Amino acid sequence: MMDIRVELTKTPKEKPADENKLGFGKIFTDHMFMMNYTEGQGWHDARIVPYGPLVLSPACSTLHYGQTVFEGMKAYRAADGRVLLFRPQENFKRMNRSCDRLAIPHIDEEFALKALCQLLELEKDWIPRSEGTSLYIRPTIIANDDYLGVKVASEYIFYIILSPSGRYYESGLDPVNLYIEEKWVRASKGGMGTAKTAGNYAASLLSQEEAHEQGYAQVLWLDGVERKYIEEVGSMNVFFVVGDEVVTPELDGSILPGITRMSCIELLKDWGVKVTERKFSVEELVSSVKNGTLKEAFGTGTAAVVSPIGEMRLGDETEQIGDHKIGKLTQKLYDTITGIQTGVLEDPKGWRYEVCKG
Amino acid sequence: MMDIRVELTKTPKEKPADENKLGFGKIFTDHMFMMNYTEGQGWHDARIVPYGPLVLSPACSTLHYGQTVFEGMKAYRAADGRVLLFRPQENFKRMNRSCDRLAIPHIDEEFALKALCQLLELEKDWIPRSEGTSLYIRPTIIANDDYLGVKVASEYIFYIILSPSGRYYESGLDPVNLYIEEKWVRASKGGMGTAKTAGNYAASLLSQEEAHEQGYAQVLWLDGVERKYIEEVGSMNVFFVVGDEVVTPELDGSILPGITRMSCIELLKDWGVKVTERKFSVEELVSSVKNGTLKEAFGTGTAAVVSPIGEMRLGDETEQIGDHKIGKLTQKLYDTITGIQTGVLEDPKGWRYEVCKG
Repeated sequence: MMDIRVELTKTPKEKPADENKLGFGKIFTDHMFMMNYTEGQGWHDARIVPYGPLVLSPACSTLHYGQTVFEGMKAYRAADGRVLLFRPQENFKRMNRSCDRLAIPHIDEEFALKALCQLLELEKDWIPRSEGTSLYIRPTIIANDDYLGVKVASEYIFYIILSPSGRYYESGLDPVNLYIEEKWVRASKGGMGTAKTAGNYAASLLSQEEAHEQGYAQVLWLDGVERKYIEEVGSMNVFFVVGDEVVTPELDGSILPGITRMSCIELLKDWGVKVTERKFSVEELVSSVKNGTLKEAFGTGTAAVVSPIGEMRLGDETEQIGDHKIGKLTQKLYDTITGIQTGVLEDPKGWRYEVCKG
Repeated sequence: MMDIRVELTKTPKEKPADENKLGFGKIFTDHMFMMNYTEGQGWHDARIVPYGPLVLSPACSTLHYGQTVFEGMKAYRAADGRVLLFRPQENFKRMNRSCDRLAIPHIDEEFALKALCQLLELEKDWIPRSEGTSLYIRPTIIANDDYLGVKVASEYIFYIILSPSGRYYESGLDPVNLYIEEKWVRASKGGMGTAKTAGNYAASLLSQEEAHEQGYAQVLWLDGVERKYIEEVGSMNVFFVVGDEVVTPELDGSILPGITRMSCIELLKDWGVKVTERKFSVEELVSSVKNGTLKEAFGTGTAAVVSPIGEMRLGDETEQIGDHKIGKLTQKLYDTITGIQTGVLEDPKGWRYEVCKG
């Protein structure tokens, strides 16, 4: 494995005084991890350096052609001081799958995790301890050719930045209301929907803004081909509790394979709950609300973990879900996953990854 | 209109000695234009400064969420020294339409053109004069929030960089061979296909690489819904001469509205050629090759202007077009447009825009 050069900051920043005012993704720690890729040479120059700006050519290929992938993870500080991650191997595995779609060279997953751990150990005092807080982790790869031709790049930068963060949604676990998007599409089969890459988020921004203007927190995305099957919610996967079945859209080639999604499915199965990955249409959604079989709905993602859905709007109709209160199963999944993540609960499945002792 | 501050370089670069070795998009001039946008303040700090790197936060929103648009234009140096642009107003108009899709604030089109002209006048000695060469112009807008939340940015940078360039395709006007892409999709209806934005190019890279590996220069894209109608070729629009009709795919919501495309349609109409914007299926393409009615096929775009197509592969079958030679109409369109662009021909439609005298 590559050596990691370490250059410590000479001007450490003051850590946030009030953990209730962290917000999300606004504050960054003192250091970041970086390494470079050059065709023929591979990944090299692994280093932990003071957090600071990237110096990029105005022709940098990522800015023009979007050849970039990222991941989202969280580190927690347990009550006894241990630094904990949640299934981090899955994130680096997914990052490499995203790389495949974007024609970006793979990273060594084991080395990336080692580098992250070394960075976290250095920055552990930045990890907030209050309930619902964490150190958000953003591994990123950007193409860095200084060239305007449209082609797969020969140079890349991989970096990891860390951001002490509060809850993702400021309203916390209050159910959110959704707007079913009938005009815009996030991703289509054959596109990049299964990859965690900039273009999918770019495609979602206008729709998100239109939803906000109408008082909705998030958008519910439909498939790009038939425009009838539910795909994702905002930047989360989505689950519906219909009668005694929990339904989540199957990974059909345009949905991001969420790690929280996968964990929810595994937990539900362990609990003996029937969980099905299948197509779920808007029509079925509306009829299950009308006939009273839809009990709960929630989004899942690293940032929010589990986010209950209280209301959905389709065209001129608004459908209420579960009296706009968080459902029992939603709450149990949230409590279980965050309990495992923060070291409060047992970890029978070995999902927790201990970075270091306190 | 805003004032433009000018800061001249103290270290001018040497200009390329051999105009036959310019390549495309690799060399940049001494200066660039920039301005910034801040919510509440609008676009400000317009300036021409020495060409140099952008200093961006590792959390810069464009790198993560791809909120960016660009344009492609060319400046030509006429024999008498005049600096000429081709329909530049259309590029800035399209840039604003791209901004709409990406939820980016509009630029003042007239001001952007004025700024470009001032930059070109300063850099005019960088414009190559040999046949097929030009000064490629890349206006770009990138979101620049220092924030990891997924949202429409509050800060943007607009910049224009200039690159003396040879022909886009090194094989010049030799017909290219294409690979009909059946697996991957560039853009779908409801997506960002009509906008000139990074994500569309990101989606195309893997397919382009697979085509290259199989010996094909470009990819022919099909629609994302039915996967049967032809949309674009590589990063160009596409035309087919079938019998006495010229067909180009209609702008159906996922195709980039090319300025060269629009110009070809107008020229063909002026020449009394029947030109139709409509759906054109792979099935119709193949049958028109087999029954001998397909006479010519070509791509159009700013970089290549007009690029003849000599061969297309679908699955295991390879279809030859026009004996792999450039067709008459293709050649006439190329000669006419480049003739107008470079000041060699008359300009009855007022497409040429004179930046300055020699």
